[in-house]
Amino acid sequence: LSLRPTGRRRKKTGKKEGKAVNLIILDGGELDGAGEAALRDGRAAHLIGVLHAAPGSVVRIGLLDGPLGRGLVTSVSPPVVTLRCTFEPTAPPRPPVDLLMAVPRPKVMRRLWPQLAALGVGRITLTNAARVERNYFDTHVLTPGCYRPLLIEGLQQARDTHLPAVTIHRQFRPLIEDHLNGLFADGARLLAHPHASTTIRGAVDGPTRRVLLAIGPEGGWNEFELTLLERHGFRTVSMGPRTLRVDTACIALLGLVHDALRR
Amino acid sequence: LSLRPTGRRRKKTGKKEGKAVNLIILDGGELDGAGEAALRDGRAAHLIGVLHAAPGSVVRIGLLDGPLGRGLVTSVSPPVVTLRCTFEPTAPPRPPVDLLMAVPRPKVMRRLWPQLAALGVGRITLTNAARVERNYFDTHVLTPGCYRPLLIEGLQQARDTHLPAVTIHRQFRPLIEDHLNGLFADGARLLAHPHASTTIRGAVDGPTRRVLLAIGPEGGWNEFELTLLERHGFRTVSMGPRTLRVDTACIALLGLVHDALRR
Repeated sequence: LSLRPTGRRRKKTGKKEGKAVNLIILDGGELDGAGEAALRDGRAAHLIGVLHAAPGSVVRIGLLDGPLGRGLVTSVSPPVVTLRCTFEPTAPPRPPVDLLMAVPRPKVMRRLWPQLAALGVGRITLTNAARVERNYFDTHVLTPGCYRPLLIEGLQQARDTHLPAVTIHRQFRPLIEDHLNGLFADGARLLAHPHASTTIRGAVDGPTRRVLLAIGPEGGWNEFELTLLERHGFRTVSMGPRTLRVDTACIALLGLVHDALRR
Repeated sequence: LSLRPTGRRRKKTGKKEGKAVNLIILDGGELDGAGEAALRDGRAAHLIGVLHAAPGSVVRIGLLDGPLGRGLVTSVSPPVVTLRCTFEPTAPPRPPVDLLMAVPRPKVMRRLWPQLAALGVGRITLTNAARVERNYFDTHVLTPGCYRPLLIEGLQQARDTHLPAVTIHRQFRPLIEDHLNGLFADGARLLAHPHASTTIRGAVDGPTRRVLLAIGPEGGWNEFELTLLERHGFRTVSMGPRTLRVDTACIALLGLVHDALRR
């Protein structure tokens, strides 16, 4: 049996859109009583075309929102690959970072979905803000049919199984005043702001186990929004004086928050 | 006179591709002896269409590879806007991070250029690696005609004036063995590797003033490349166990290195 470092092969062929599959993710419903799954979609194509899977190959698998494991290839008859799946006793920990984000432009949001899941986010809460264009809400990019596969793509890249929970709130104020405590019961609340004097590391102190990170729209939150957020426990933090695009800032901030929580 | 927070307006119109112009960058050759510049390209269009500049308006400007300053609008006659420019006595400091990067896919590289300049990079050195496809070198995306405007776009976003120096090396080994010390005389050399035990913060100690960060191709450096880099002073660092896409990793790592250097 060989445990193939999935994705290694992919890089060499370089045919597809940079989607490295470092883990094959299965949904619980795909497993029969004996722990067997018959795949016939892109995952099967990846197993056949990229990993050259044959009966006896073993590949890394993960159960969506469950544990990691190994899949023994029991048969390959294109386009179907059958795996016998065994899983570790426990699932990997849920990512300790949540995101509260003003809806960005659809094109930006589309690019962010897989990157957010890859960086590791427990919950993604998208909201309105004065500087968000209304039509950003009426887009395909905010439908589960669009974002779910993109999130799973990110999980397969990063070898995680935790699908971020996504909710979309068209009204900022009721979200902050009425729903926030239910959605994010615990954890430090941080608000990225270029003029803040506290660093992320400074704000994530010893006992902090979870962080809810708020990221504004291009152009920033307005005064009303800032005040409301601060009144609901958000502490402003900065990662330096440079003004970054929302997507760049979001990725860099998630990296910094994860790093600060790892100490 | 009003100092307009450039870019603020842009966000509301939201018409263009997320290119926030927070600073109008001028080239030295555009200034006449009296410090006046007549703009007639996208910058003039931005001044007229987005900032609604009129004679008497003052806007943030920067001299490419030079100081920041202010531009007093002296005339507006579309498509030309004339600015009288004054500059601060000194230029902002050069970003303390350099990048040694295996050439990524052209589409990824194209997206990275403005983000690298916005995050702040002194020098970008692109090189070959076993897992880089040969044809990545023969692309428009690696020509100054393509990357220079994208880098300036990033500077205008982040309000910096330091155009990253770019060099492209088709041969990895001569670069590392013969040219590296000339290109990067000082600074800590870090190599991002998922299995390293040292964090970036741990590797950037007190006296470190500059960092050269090496980022491999999708799929990573091979053994030969890793050994050669380590033999030339690169220390492996990790930002956690998740395997990220090269562009995601690059942005998150630059954020972490900048943060570690700011302490």
